[in-house]
Amino acid sequence: MTGIVYLVGAGPGAPDLLTLRAAELLRRADIVFHDALVHPDTLMLAEKAEKIAVGKRCGRHSTAQRFINKRLVDAARTHELVVRLKGGDPLLFGRAQEEIDALEQAGIEYAIVPGITAALAASAAVGVSMTRRGLSRNVTFVTPRTGAGEQGRDWARSALAADTCAIYMGVGEAAQIAATLMARGASPDLPAVIVESATLSGERRIAVRLADLGAAAAQMITGPAVILLGEVYARVQSAEVTAETTARSRAA
Amino acid sequence: MTGIVYLVGAGPGAPDLLTLRAAELLRRADIVFHDALVHPDTLMLAEKAEKIAVGKRCGRHSTAQRFINKRLVDAARTHELVVRLKGGDPLLFGRAQEEIDALEQAGIEYAIVPGITAALAASAAVGVSMTRRGLSRNVTFVTPRTGAGEQGRDWARSALAADTCAIYMGVGEAAQIAATLMARGASPDLPAVIVESATLSGERRIAVRLADLGAAAAQMITGPAVILLGEVYARVQSAEVTAETTARSRAA
Repeated sequence: MTGIVYLVGAGPGAPDLLTLRAAELLRRADIVFHDALVHPDTLMLAEKAEKIAVGKRCGRHSTAQRFINKRLVDAARTHELVVRLKGGDPLLFGRAQEEIDALEQAGIEYAIVPGITAALAASAAVGVSMTRRGLSRNVTFVTPRTGAGEQGRDWARSALAADTCAIYMGVGEAAQIAATLMARGASPDLPAVIVESATLSGERRIAVRLADLGAAAAQMITGPAVILLGEVYARVQSAEVTAETTARSRAA
Repeated sequence: MTGIVYLVGAGPGAPDLLTLRAAELLRRADIVFHDALVHPDTLMLAEKAEKIAVGKRCGRHSTAQRFINKRLVDAARTHELVVRLKGGDPLLFGRAQEEIDALEQAGIEYAIVPGITAALAASAAVGVSMTRRGLSRNVTFVTPRTGAGEQGRDWARSALAADTCAIYMGVGEAAQIAATLMARGASPDLPAVIVESATLSGERRIAVRLADLGAAAAQMITGPAVILLGEVYARVQSAEVTAETTARSRAA
């Protein structure tokens, strides 16, 4: 017997931003390998499954990728329905390709279930469209975080070419990001928003100009965060999500 | 009485790629304004709501944007829970900002519920990560489609700067897109995939090199489609989704 592995996007955080398909797969799953940041209520949907935390969190390396790949292959040989639950969308900064390649090499059947990615959840929280007629007709998602074999790639070029840009895994080096972009021509006045813990109870956003991004990032401490850059954010104001602001930024 | 308007992403097509939050809001909705491409099974979740089709389809202008804005404002003055259901994600090529602005100007409360955008659904169908260590650390979503006041903006610059690129609303002018990108330095051998009706029963994909994109697009006729460009797609093969391939590309 060989089972099937589903690489499933858990979405940005709030348990009800999971897809119906993902919820159904969790209910049926025999074993779930999940990132550290997946919400406990989401994991509870996997009633009958063995649950194994394997994710990396904020760059802290918890379980080596090669070991995760091997566990997925092994699990498919002993379980009918294996779920690999990843924060956000599996195919955007999720290192899913390494898991897909391992499954293909082992001849294991797999399928991918997309999820809400952090930048779109952050945008929904802020209430500003990433595209806008006359102002933004393209959007770039980028990370400055380098991995093995990536030293040669230039993250800033695509950020500078974009009308609107979302930077993943960048808050820890926000001052350096801002300096790099400004040195290469970005305006110090370019509107920027850091959104922390989007869709979760600790949600917070700080709206600044690019020149002040580093100082703003220093105020962000705990949750996962996305940096949004672009003229579309010119009107955004900083906010913590309180009872008053919740209705605007989040559905019940 | 003034109600609240939820701008809700319906996802890429398959009804079970709706979020749990969106499904719950549809169940509670008093009135739903929806795009033409939203799946009938998704609309059926809105059991008690009046349902009004207002969307534009493939550039055919069905209901003027200004008229939609006005109807949303009017509906919030006579209904408690108004849902504006948009294909994909509301804040990516959805013209949501015009609706948000109209609601803000009228003092109507609103919230945004993100959805799975077409490029991520297409990627899940193809089974290839948009980012990949050593090969792609940024992703650009772009449309060459111009609207009023956008003639001056250069869509190709961000596409050329991206490691991986998804082109929305571009299949109708694919030959021109390929010619433009090649004239500005893109390799004729750049891998391209057109994914049509991702997540739906008519799902189909054609994998070609950029130089052959126009000919491939001419074979796509019916459904909404996304063009994916980038080295990450080098191994993709053309396919219609059949019983054999469904397991790999789709859950349930």
